[in-house]
Amino acid sequence: MDHETSTTSRGGYAKGDARREAIVDVATDVFATLGFRAATMLQIAAACGISRTGLLHHFPSKESLLEAVLSRRDERSATLIPKRVGTDDDDRAALARMVALMRHNADSPTIINLFSVLSAEAGDPAHPAHAYFVSRYASLRSELIESLTRLHRRGGLTAGTDPTALAVELIALMDGLQVQWVLAPDQVDMAGVLRHRIDAALLRPLD
Amino acid sequence: MDHETSTTSRGGYAKGDARREAIVDVATDVFATLGFRAATMLQIAAACGISRTGLLHHFPSKESLLEAVLSRRDERSATLIPKRVGTDDDDRAALARMVALMRHNADSPTIINLFSVLSAEAGDPAHPAHAYFVSRYASLRSELIESLTRLHRRGGLTAGTDPTALAVELIALMDGLQVQWVLAPDQVDMAGVLRHRIDAALLRPLD
Repeated sequence: MDHETSTTSRGGYAKGDARREAIVDVATDVFATLGFRAATMLQIAAACGISRTGLLHHFPSKESLLEAVLSRRDERSATLIPKRVGTDDDDRAALARMVALMRHNADSPTIINLFSVLSAEAGDPAHPAHAYFVSRYASLRSELIESLTRLHRRGGLTAGTDPTALAVELIALMDGLQVQWVLAPDQVDMAGVLRHRIDAALLRPLD
Repeated sequence: MDHETSTTSRGGYAKGDARREAIVDVATDVFATLGFRAATMLQIAAACGISRTGLLHHFPSKESLLEAVLSRRDERSATLIPKRVGTDDDDRAALARMVALMRHNADSPTIINLFSVLSAEAGDPAHPAHAYFVSRYASLRSELIESLTRLHRRGGLTAGTDPTALAVELIALMDGLQVQWVLAPDQVDMAGVLRHRIDAALLRPLD
């Protein structure tokens, strides 16, 4: 009995999870196209083929849906860019993964749009994702500064490189390349430009 | 009589122009905060202290208001960054003006937000400013490529520099720095990072 119940209940959860996943997929597309502010729960519900009430059952507010969209993106990126453990090779590998991420993103315009639109919207302190983006950039910067500082200490970077300024620069470069690429994919070689910049900072270029 | 009429009429135009200017100011703020899509004509009218009908008298649609906001920004930037005539010093001066623009923008967060939000939203081909941003970036790139190519031909850039890739990179860097700066003004020295990158590409650093 307990087993039955728990199976049924697991089945119910599984179905609910699949539905939630599908909603998060649709919401990712809608936020990527319209931004958070202009998107409505009604549009998202319609795009999912469910009622607004049905949507609210899974996500009580547009903010909670945004949170689900962003945390799923973070999980996926974490898989794509595994944590480094701090050796020289790991720090170089981290830079290589940034280039790989640019190459990967060129196949995922939706994700590029999502982050470009949301991070720009979130410049307003009243935006529900403001705190998320402030802390996202702060940790991106601090991880990359650490990584570049280790590399620099080991003599891996060209003379005169400031690891902090370089970290800010590389993150900015990735963001700006994405905005420019969406508007002219044929003119902007995101991975190529980033790779070239990283190689110029390294004494020994990436493999 | 003619004189009288024309004075009155000029007075009328002048008043109408001042009102239009004031509306464009308010719309710039609203679009910078909410983006184009989420902003409504009703909000903009309310922020101007006029009725929606009063607003529609000056701007028949949200699209026409966006156009006015963007073309006024372009006029102002043109004043700030005068056209170059093509000598070596002019090309170096063009780079110096990009750094000056970053310094200037750090005092104009509204304009930074406006361009960050609109250029990201405009990644969607259905956005009314899509064509504007596609052509804006195309001309930014081609002017900067020309300028850097001239400098390179005269031996002004470090060996191995690709003027086209560098143009794409510098424009991306400016855009990305702005997104990052809005979220953490104390952590991001926009003008400093850009200046450092430009100096690294020049055989003789900027003055």
